[in-house]
Amino acid sequence: VSSLSGVSSATPTEEMNGAGNLMDFLDEPFPDVGTYEDFHTIDWLREKSRDTDHVTIRNKPTCYHSKESIWELIKSLLDAWSGWVVMLLIGLLSGTLAGVIDLAVDWMTDLKEGVCLSAFWYSHEQCCWTSNETTFDDRDKCPQWQKWAELMTGHAEGAGAYVLNYFLYILWALLFSFLAVSLVRVFAPYACGSGIPEIKTILSGFIIRGYLGKWTLLIKTVTLVLAVSSGLSLGKEGPLVHVACCCGNLFCSLFSKYSKNEGKRREVLSAAAAAGVSVAFGAPIGGVLFSLEEVSYYFPLKTLWRSFFAALVAAFTLRSINPFGNSRLVLFYVEYHTPWYMAELVPFILLGVFGGLWGTLFIRANIAWCRRRKTTQLGKYPVLEVIAITGITAVLAYPNPYTRRSTSELISELFNDCGALESSQLCDYINNPNMSRPVDDIPDRPAGPGVYNALWQLALALVFKIVITIFTFGMKIPSGLFIPSMAVGAIAGRIVGIAVEQMAYHHHDWIIFKNWCRPGADCVTPGLYAMVGAAACLGGVTRMTVSLVVIMFELTGGLEYIVPLMAAAVTSKWVADAFGKEGIYESHIQLNGYPYLDVRDEFTHRTLATDVMRPRRNDPPLAVLTQDTTTVEDVETLIKDTDYNGFPVVVSRESERLIGFVQRRDLTLAIKNARQKQDGVVSSSVVYFTEDAPQLPASNPQPLKLRRILNLSPFTVTDHTPMETVVDIFRKLGLRQCLVTRSGRLLGIITKKDVLRHMAQMMNQDPESIMFN
Amino acid sequence: VSSLSGVSSATPTEEMNGAGNLMDFLDEPFPDVGTYEDFHTIDWLREKSRDTDHVTIRNKPTCYHSKESIWELIKSLLDAWSGWVVMLLIGLLSGTLAGVIDLAVDWMTDLKEGVCLSAFWYSHEQCCWTSNETTFDDRDKCPQWQKWAELMTGHAEGAGAYVLNYFLYILWALLFSFLAVSLVRVFAPYACGSGIPEIKTILSGFIIRGYLGKWTLLIKTVTLVLAVSSGLSLGKEGPLVHVACCCGNLFCSLFSKYSKNEGKRREVLSAAAAAGVSVAFGAPIGGVLFSLEEVSYYFPLKTLWRSFFAALVAAFTLRSINPFGNSRLVLFYVEYHTPWYMAELVPFILLGVFGGLWGTLFIRANIAWCRRRKTTQLGKYPVLEVIAITGITAVLAYPNPYTRRSTSELISELFNDCGALESSQLCDYINNPNMSRPVDDIPDRPAGPGVYNALWQLALALVFKIVITIFTFGMKIPSGLFIPSMAVGAIAGRIVGIAVEQMAYHHHDWIIFKNWCRPGADCVTPGLYAMVGAAACLGGVTRMTVSLVVIMFELTGGLEYIVPLMAAAVTSKWVADAFGKEGIYESHIQLNGYPYLDVRDEFTHRTLATDVMRPRRNDPPLAVLTQDTTTVEDVETLIKDTDYNGFPVVVSRESERLIGFVQRRDLTLAIKNARQKQDGVVSSSVVYFTEDAPQLPASNPQPLKLRRILNLSPFTVTDHTPMETVVDIFRKLGLRQCLVTRSGRLLGIITKKDVLRHMAQMMNQDPESIMFN
Repeated sequence: VSSLSGVSSATPTEEMNGAGNLMDFLDEPFPDVGTYEDFHTIDWLREKSRDTDHVTIRNKPTCYHSKESIWELIKSLLDAWSGWVVMLLIGLLSGTLAGVIDLAVDWMTDLKEGVCLSAFWYSHEQCCWTSNETTFDDRDKCPQWQKWAELMTGHAEGAGAYVLNYFLYILWALLFSFLAVSLVRVFAPYACGSGIPEIKTILSGFIIRGYLGKWTLLIKTVTLVLAVSSGLSLGKEGPLVHVACCCGNLFCSLFSKYSKNEGKRREVLSAAAAAGVSVAFGAPIGGVLFSLEEVSYYFPLKTLWRSFFAALVAAFTLRSINPFGNSRLVLFYVEYHTPWYMAELVPFILLGVFGGLWGTLFIRANIAWCRRRKTTQLGKYPVLEVIAITGITAVLAYPNPYTRRSTSELISELFNDCGALESSQLCDYINNPNMSRPVDDIPDRPAGPGVYNALWQLALALVFKIVITIFTFGMKIPSGLFIPSMAVGAIAGRIVGIAVEQMAYHHHDWIIFKNWCRPGADCVTPGLYAMVGAAACLGGVTRMTVSLVVIMFELTGGLEYIVPLMAAAVTSKWVADAFGKEGIYESHIQLNGYPYLDVRDEFTHRTLATDVMRPRRNDPPLAVLTQDTTTVEDVETLIKDTDYNGFPVVVSRESERLIGFVQRRDLTLAIKNARQKQDGVVSSSVVYFTEDAPQLPASNPQPLKLRRILNLSPFTVTDHTPMETVVDIFRKLGLRQCLVTRSGRLLGIITKKDVLRHMAQMMNQDPESIMFN
Repeated sequence: VSSLSGVSSATPTEEMNGAGNLMDFLDEPFPDVGTYEDFHTIDWLREKSRDTDHVTIRNKPTCYHSKESIWELIKSLLDAWSGWVVMLLIGLLSGTLAGVIDLAVDWMTDLKEGVCLSAFWYSHEQCCWTSNETTFDDRDKCPQWQKWAELMTGHAEGAGAYVLNYFLYILWALLFSFLAVSLVRVFAPYACGSGIPEIKTILSGFIIRGYLGKWTLLIKTVTLVLAVSSGLSLGKEGPLVHVACCCGNLFCSLFSKYSKNEGKRREVLSAAAAAGVSVAFGAPIGGVLFSLEEVSYYFPLKTLWRSFFAALVAAFTLRSINPFGNSRLVLFYVEYHTPWYMAELVPFILLGVFGGLWGTLFIRANIAWCRRRKTTQLGKYPVLEVIAITGITAVLAYPNPYTRRSTSELISELFNDCGALESSQLCDYINNPNMSRPVDDIPDRPAGPGVYNALWQLALALVFKIVITIFTFGMKIPSGLFIPSMAVGAIAGRIVGIAVEQMAYHHHDWIIFKNWCRPGADCVTPGLYAMVGAAACLGGVTRMTVSLVVIMFELTGGLEYIVPLMAAAVTSKWVADAFGKEGIYESHIQLNGYPYLDVRDEFTHRTLATDVMRPRRNDPPLAVLTQDTTTVEDVETLIKDTDYNGFPVVVSRESERLIGFVQRRDLTLAIKNARQKQDGVVSSSVVYFTEDAPQLPASNPQPLKLRRILNLSPFTVTDHTPMETVVDIFRKLGLRQCLVTRSGRLLGIITKKDVLRHMAQMMNQDPESIMFN
């Protein structure tokens, strides 16, 4: 028997095979066994035990020679700390990238309007900050900063200058978006979109090679700057999560512990997603909860601690870069000075309803448009589409001051309470001449003409944003929808806020206002309404609740406003859920047909495993291998004739008693290897999976032992197991497939695809829509 | 066949059994089938599918008669909303209880020292607040509040008055603690301790009847007040979690959806734990994370949302009761005015090391003492023990002002920064006469004699707290250790803080201080050191990280100080973990021998299922039932002779092919029921688990069909499955037992106890220490 050198493998279940392993010694381990092909699903249980394997090898006792032992010690320490090191690196790199992106976007957004004469690489704000001639009242105006028309013609005002500025604004926007879409198309097609649907799918155990690669990282970073600067209605928050995950993937490759284990790699990616949100909003705790609530699939406690660490490092790296120039961590820093009143819950809940309706409308319309893009001619001209949408956006956005500026600036202004020194149009209230109070606590005042003017412009901006965002999200450029969604909500909220404020001022004798709003008091904070509206709209689109509220809480820093935010977020979720359970990310996952098993879908149907397993009643029997009677040729025929990813191995076709499961990929590799390297292996050689070679006549060719690639612990359920339990097992253990038995006999197989197809069927969806690319 | 009326049951797997069920119609469902006995472990998968059952029954189409349909609609709405209703009720009740406890503790703590003449139910602070004669400088002194000596003898000062006050202080303390321990012993023995170890065990799926009952709730609330007021070194935070969980259990009984399903009930309890921490610290987000990180076992996203809701409601209920009189949600509200400097990380990390060492010392010493209490005569005199410890505590605590007051007041003072108006001894700095700065930003000053005096007293208090807490935690009264741990850390931190501050003041030319501390600047905030120390010590004892940092963050409200807190918490965890993996709660779980399968323990040994399963090599064969040849008598003998909780059912003893699993409890009940109600069932009747009755000679007595209680989908693994995978499956699916097969033949069984015993063995612990009461 010792002449039959077996085929080596790294499959862990095999290594545990204790006795008898010395017999089938290895030529060399062939490298790819136990890995996955592109667009395949990983087996979490297998990955987990591969890691243990690794740990056990790492911890094996070493001989204590002086030098080596120190080296070993350093190596083992590095290995033990590698998780934290990776987190540190992710935090540093994603914080730095976020800072660079922020600075670049600032500069390029302003470049559309003008240039700084003292140094062309200064943005408008930096330009005027460095200028000494600026007075505090008019920070935005300084001689160093010149609009294009002024620079080119010398005239700052007038219709001619306006038209020239308008024209150049559109030209720059077109240039930026053309560059963005071209770069994406040529270098990294995976860099488009927000990336969150794909990351969710990857984290749930799917393999998409290159999606988190170096090229994607580079191109996504560059094109994100271009896309945001072009003035399109999109944000950088979602793509930042993708960028952070790319960083995570990059650093995984430094440590074999992470690069070789798809399960461990996903733990790092979960933490990276937290770091991404952390830098996007300056909200580390919110980022961790976002990763937990929205993105991750498998989130053990260890990952919780590490994500928190990564998120903190990222946030502090960003703060030390200080791109907003205000030493603040957060994108929209606000401070409110007045509490809210119980009666205000009514408008807050109405904003929640609005958010839910907007979420539903957006998801339905966007998915319909994306489906049209996928199925019609439209999808063939992505560059043209981007150019056209950019053109329309620029043409419509420029005349309205609220859409001309960058969306995050708009949100920031809408969130802010009107202080005494505020010069914006939104704060054009008629001042009480007798006012002699401190700056913080200005009583409610009647609105001046500027406010009414602003209301009209905001209403137009609202309609514009709603329509254009539907067409923008899903184009072939990096695009997030946090910021556009928040903008829609913030505009609606601010409008409602001003309306309530003016009502309270003019009708403070009405019964509803009487109790909480005396004349001369500061009762209503329109900025808070904007914030609540933003939370509601974001919640309607993404269906986040806790992480959303925590992110908003980290923006304001006061527990005071959690109740309004919570009320709006929960209302919005309920309203939106009434029209359809899926958030925008799940809808896009479905649209793209990724095999994603959502942890949130409840499966409450009473089907049994036997209803789902294949083969079905009239199908041909299950393709199985027998433990010691199949020949190499039989195996090769089976592989050629079927496209299954693996085959159960049974004792014999008569008894149908299961002994194990073998992966197609491993089988192909093993036979190829054996044919090349092992003498005597021919087509008529018997393949056997038992410990000992079968008793064969002497005339037969040498048999081939394949026990090493056999998984001896395949997962089985009985045919009477309720599908609910099966779905639960698939979710919690992250299985790829599961065998179905009855009284010890193999009946069939259920794969993840079968489960997904069955779930779709039960929810009256077309099961064929799950295409899996 | 129709004369054989079968035995009814509510087991869901049975209901799914489609065809052939009409035959064995039911007399009446006997009530206890599918429930668990006390001190048994639940089967999560089974509970989950029971819930689906419930949903399916609830959703079945109803006939639309006018009145009924409205009633049905209301019922189904109530059912759908019952989760949120339960959360609302939990939040309201636990918030109210927490408020009442706070108020009562305040009053009774002060009662030890004196009484308010204007109204005896006022605490010292309330008494002086309502008095008009108080000046701002001396809030604590007012004529209405009289110490006992003053009231009884008329002399407020002098040695006689001191001795009388001292004596009465001890007397009150003894009275309170005697009442507490007697109430616990007589009415609710489960009300003692912090309750968190038991709640962790219950949430992991163990049944302890009465642990969360109404009596426990009532007695724990009352005795908690008494215990805290008696001045013992214990806190109310842990017990508040227990109280909140009792509330949760109470409200579960209102809805059959929760009261009848042990799995759903645990989801509610997880949320209740979050509400408990939320009111304990005024930190709703921290509470949710505490429940997630520290307490819960199964924490789906739905529970995350609901816990958050419950935690918020609880926090706001508490705030509207306003027990601290400052409209603040939080127990220790602090505001710091100066940032921290990079060099301060060194003392912060040292505090982390101290916290880790304290955690290790505390856990080891406390467990050793508790073990001694369990095993020696000591445990037989719990009342005496409590009285003795109270006496010692009171005698030693009174002379030192820092131990005389309540521990939370002490922590509050230690956390606070010294403002200009602060009158405490700790703030007795030598003022710079030229100082004309605003109140907020006082530069570092040299310490006055009061500070040095305070340092000595604090050092004595530190030693006292360290020693007495070890003996206090684990006595038969409600006792939490958050507050004592935090006190130890806060004292240590404040001492270090003052030392660094004075060093920086006197040696600001040293190289380490040169860069960040110019003379006349406010460089060091000793209060921040106290907070960091408190976090470190709490982290060392409980091994929390993220939730700890978030709780502390909610206390200060600024992201600014997250890095120091994080550094200290992580250092403390690492140091403590180096000496032993278990936190105090896990250690107490082990000490009490609860069957708790920790999600955090990594199992990395290479054993296989076959090494763990029973029967072992020389054991008698596995006790099994056959599908159609066992008689009623055989079954009864088997039940009598063994104490297994369930029996596998096989086709026949020869083939050993598994068809299902039957619970001992169900089997006993079914046979008892059949003997009583079904004619013809005698000892020699054959019991069968197949669809159809076996072919028997006509002379045989009527067979008994038991298919309804048979679980047709028992969980199986092969004998080659690595134990690591088995442990993972037990954890993630919450199994009670798992059958082991090889090529379809039943080999043995692995129960949760076997898994725990094996894990203990692998970690070189005595497996017999897992006693399971």
